[in-house]
Amino acid sequence: MAERGARGVPRSVPAVAVTRGGRVESVHRGSVAVVLEDGTLLASLGDPRQGVWLRSSAKPFQLAPFLAAGGEERFALATEEIALAAASHSGEPAHTRLAAAMLAKGGFTEGDLHCGAHPPMHEPSARAVWAAGKSPTPLHNNCSGKHAAMLLACRLMGLDPAAYWRKGHPLQKRILASVSRMTGVPAARIARAVDGCSVPVFRVPLASLARAYARLVGDGPRGESPAEAAARRRIAGAMAAAPEMVAGTGRFTTDLMREFGGALVAKEGAEGVYAVGVPAALARRGGKAVGIAVKIADGAERGRDAVTVEVLAALGIAKGARLARLRKLAFKPVLNVRGDVVGDLRTLFRLGSA
Amino acid sequence: MAERGARGVPRSVPAVAVTRGGRVESVHRGSVAVVLEDGTLLASLGDPRQGVWLRSSAKPFQLAPFLAAGGEERFALATEEIALAAASHSGEPAHTRLAAAMLAKGGFTEGDLHCGAHPPMHEPSARAVWAAGKSPTPLHNNCSGKHAAMLLACRLMGLDPAAYWRKGHPLQKRILASVSRMTGVPAARIARAVDGCSVPVFRVPLASLARAYARLVGDGPRGESPAEAAARRRIAGAMAAAPEMVAGTGRFTTDLMREFGGALVAKEGAEGVYAVGVPAALARRGGKAVGIAVKIADGAERGRDAVTVEVLAALGIAKGARLARLRKLAFKPVLNVRGDVVGDLRTLFRLGSA
Repeated sequence: MAERGARGVPRSVPAVAVTRGGRVESVHRGSVAVVLEDGTLLASLGDPRQGVWLRSSAKPFQLAPFLAAGGEERFALATEEIALAAASHSGEPAHTRLAAAMLAKGGFTEGDLHCGAHPPMHEPSARAVWAAGKSPTPLHNNCSGKHAAMLLACRLMGLDPAAYWRKGHPLQKRILASVSRMTGVPAARIARAVDGCSVPVFRVPLASLARAYARLVGDGPRGESPAEAAARRRIAGAMAAAPEMVAGTGRFTTDLMREFGGALVAKEGAEGVYAVGVPAALARRGGKAVGIAVKIADGAERGRDAVTVEVLAALGIAKGARLARLRKLAFKPVLNVRGDVVGDLRTLFRLGSA
Repeated sequence: MAERGARGVPRSVPAVAVTRGGRVESVHRGSVAVVLEDGTLLASLGDPRQGVWLRSSAKPFQLAPFLAAGGEERFALATEEIALAAASHSGEPAHTRLAAAMLAKGGFTEGDLHCGAHPPMHEPSARAVWAAGKSPTPLHNNCSGKHAAMLLACRLMGLDPAAYWRKGHPLQKRILASVSRMTGVPAARIARAVDGCSVPVFRVPLASLARAYARLVGDGPRGESPAEAAARRRIAGAMAAAPEMVAGTGRFTTDLMREFGGALVAKEGAEGVYAVGVPAALARRGGKAVGIAVKIADGAERGRDAVTVEVLAALGIAKGARLARLRKLAFKPVLNVRGDVVGDLRTLFRLGSA
């Protein structure tokens, strides 16, 4: 099943088939890592050691330095605002209003956001923008909460906010240290490039992403300061408590966290990345938290949620009626334009123990 | 590199890498078949014998029975209308106006179209629909030209137009015979399912799709009637002469046919399908036409055009300044939301001789 590709192409295995008329039309390949906080690999698929650009799965760790420095108290941040700062939100009115309010707390406006403008992911919201004769603004960008928090962090830390997105900006250096601490990868070995929203994006092994999510909901990295521990717990708690702010209406991430009643933390990243932190009580792995990281090799969103749900099922974390509901969310039927079912998604893998 | 997958997953090879910061972020795998009219496989990649749902690459063959029965004369069809009937158009005003005019020639309206409504692929046209306080109609569906032609075909042939989209409708049976004739696959061995626009979709080996496109621009299948031959040539000629009707503004298919000055015929299909018919004069393969068929394994559009261009380059069909321009079209850089270049596409394959 697996193969080692040439020239930087990581191994992967067929993960999800897209069928039409009962026959395979397309196939999404992928890799998975299931890891304990100490880095122990519990199970995997494809190449768990492949480097992945974290994309938006890094958001909790990009937010952490701001909260550890006292951002919540300084700006009287609500749970929803903290969740939005770790979000890839859908650009619904509730999201853009909150992002604008966060900016205002630091004396900023949407013009200070460097993320760029794209239409809301939430289609009715996108249509409403056009129907009103307007154009999308940086507030609609799914990363506007993260960028608002970065601007507030500059205010809090006394840093120049003008170039907050640059790799060399002191805030981005603190963020790199945060990503290093949580993933367990030395900063010097974390490659950086430019994310869709213009800030630095980080590259670590897939298993290290999983480890970071185990730590997010677990005991945390060794040597963590009390402020860092409090920030980490606050971020995980806010994401789980306000999942509608972390993604949006009809989005898998929101529905997955809701389905577990806030008992786990989940986050997607662009190009087929998904990460889940499962606290010890839910993971039932000898009192240890578990982290899961998924990468769909071709970068597709289709199939990513299905792989995530089947990994949760294989680990015994999702089961029974909950699993049935999650499968309904993740295995969206293939429809024609009129809405008739013409095909489906089918998983092709069996999660192997490491 | 290649592998044979389990449970109906065809072989494929890494075809295009998507990079960010110079490192591979995602990979699209694919298969390619390069074939002569007689079915000789000249070159291939992955599994050229895998079954593929033709999707919109079948449109020229879905249109052929209508023209062979005299549709052009009966409805005084212009070249642009014939091209639109074989199109996956972008729903620009020029497309929807023409589709409406075609319907009117048979006393039909957009309410007779069974394709369903989706927003125009051409984003400014989609925005204009919403900005005008309207919703997309079936005319905006990329298949509305094909459906208009099917309705006109019913009028011409004295068939009930009410259920023209059904598998058992006499028109769809004639279309199946057309697909069989052009692909060289017996009708009984062509699986059918439901396409995105609700009409039957056909499944044949990838190499048979390539063969059909060689025949489209070549001598045609044996036993072809003079009317069938004339229809085939008219369709190929109309697509090449009015490429803006076959796709639309900024679309690769339109630009590729323009770049060759109408000397070849090209058509995409959903889920990563692409087909090119290269006439003998351009192909330089002993006076024989060549057909090319591409399938991106994960169904992505991204990478599909790049593979097509590199196959044309490997065959010596695209070269020099033309090849440079085509590569610019097909290898779109990866941009962040602000429009900065943050990555690129790179081909990973070398086309093997069969």
